[in-house]
Amino acid sequence: MSEKDKPGVLRETDDEARNLARTLLRSARSCALAVLEPETGAPFASRTLTGTDTDGTPVILVSALSSHTQALRADPRASLLAGEPGKGDPLAHPRLTVICTAEEVSRESEARTALRERFVRRHPKAKLYVDFPDFTFFRLVPERAFLNGGFGKAFLLTADDLLIRSPARSALAAMETGAVEHMNSDHAEAAGVYARHYCRARDGDWIIVGLDAAGVDLASGDRLKRLEFPHELENAGELRSELARLLREARAAG
Amino acid sequence: MSEKDKPGVLRETDDEARNLARTLLRSARSCALAVLEPETGAPFASRTLTGTDTDGTPVILVSALSSHTQALRADPRASLLAGEPGKGDPLAHPRLTVICTAEEVSRESEARTALRERFVRRHPKAKLYVDFPDFTFFRLVPERAFLNGGFGKAFLLTADDLLIRSPARSALAAMETGAVEHMNSDHAEAAGVYARHYCRARDGDWIIVGLDAAGVDLASGDRLKRLEFPHELENAGELRSELARLLREARAAG
Repeated sequence: MSEKDKPGVLRETDDEARNLARTLLRSARSCALAVLEPETGAPFASRTLTGTDTDGTPVILVSALSSHTQALRADPRASLLAGEPGKGDPLAHPRLTVICTAEEVSRESEARTALRERFVRRHPKAKLYVDFPDFTFFRLVPERAFLNGGFGKAFLLTADDLLIRSPARSALAAMETGAVEHMNSDHAEAAGVYARHYCRARDGDWIIVGLDAAGVDLASGDRLKRLEFPHELENAGELRSELARLLREARAAG
Repeated sequence: MSEKDKPGVLRETDDEARNLARTLLRSARSCALAVLEPETGAPFASRTLTGTDTDGTPVILVSALSSHTQALRADPRASLLAGEPGKGDPLAHPRLTVICTAEEVSRESEARTALRERFVRRHPKAKLYVDFPDFTFFRLVPERAFLNGGFGKAFLLTADDLLIRSPARSALAAMETGAVEHMNSDHAEAAGVYARHYCRARDGDWIIVGLDAAGVDLASGDRLKRLEFPHELENAGELRSELARLLREARAAG
């Protein structure tokens, strides 16, 4: 290992690091969640089902009976660890620690209706319990993050590096469900082309499960992939042309 | 879901739950670690390479430059999450939260020499950096634990449920390296038989990487499995007969 490959030595955060961090967080099916135990103030790690809001904020669906939910209600400070160890050396795989503040999503809010729809497309099995009275969503609003891209590749990130600030966010959120359904029915082959070409995924029954100003969420059974657009969309009208361009370029490349 | 399958409803801790918890912790290659940030007191989640001491205490190898090491030196309270999500619903896979107190292992101690040997057998690639001056071991002494064995299967465990209290512990630790080498050279087929029969592992180049009073650590490339003995050994002389019995019974079963 060279000096710059030593852990703890921070590198300057560049677009490659930002893209890796966003992709890790936005393709996570579950994360490790660290909270503070109300009785003791000690750290407590658990696993939670994870999705994202259309502004890039990570979202968890949890039972009100669980220790982490009770902890977040007592103290909203939390940390999420995204990125699975996979094969080979567990520390060679990139992972992202997000320092965040939890905001419980009110049961009757419009925000919950939108979140629920997006979350359940990503986690179809969650339909079984998402509407139980003791299940609740939290948005884990990022404050800052720490990316470990493998040995010696450490970066600090800001909330802005992880959030989607496009002015088209609300307009895109309003049309998301319709656009997803349109793509999956009228351009059913696109999801597989995106997954294989841009996300180096193996073949599968790929479908689109999310569309936002920064990219596309793709799923095949248990697998989730995230295709990040090169730039955030500035208006909702660009969505169609960006999806078409990505498809055209992937096909042209082979 | 029935009432007892609801999350947060604790079941009575039985031997099956204890065995699952021990197996999760003792077969972990890496864990999510939750610590307290020194500057803010906020929870911080990261990933660490994990092993166990011969008394069952989980052990991590970390860089002194990392955030989690600095945090543990400032406040030793920590939590480990063991158990990987794997395929299917991430929450259907069992995982274990251990609430623990970190004890840094002194660089010059005999305890470190023994830990290092056992840890490096489990993580051969760690040989590359384990002796760097800024790498250090912590023992994460369990206080209590919380097992989530899948939806609605929640159990509380005590430190005693996770620790190995056998009077033969030291004697076995003293002979561990020799016994591992003997098994892997003179009974090279045993590890594969153990892994397939008792741990439902696929074929592989299985070897024994750890032996203690409570069981056997098995490795094949990236994979780690834990074979728990039905009872802790009460004296070191039982090791040979227990290993022979397990081999004989596995062969007799098919």
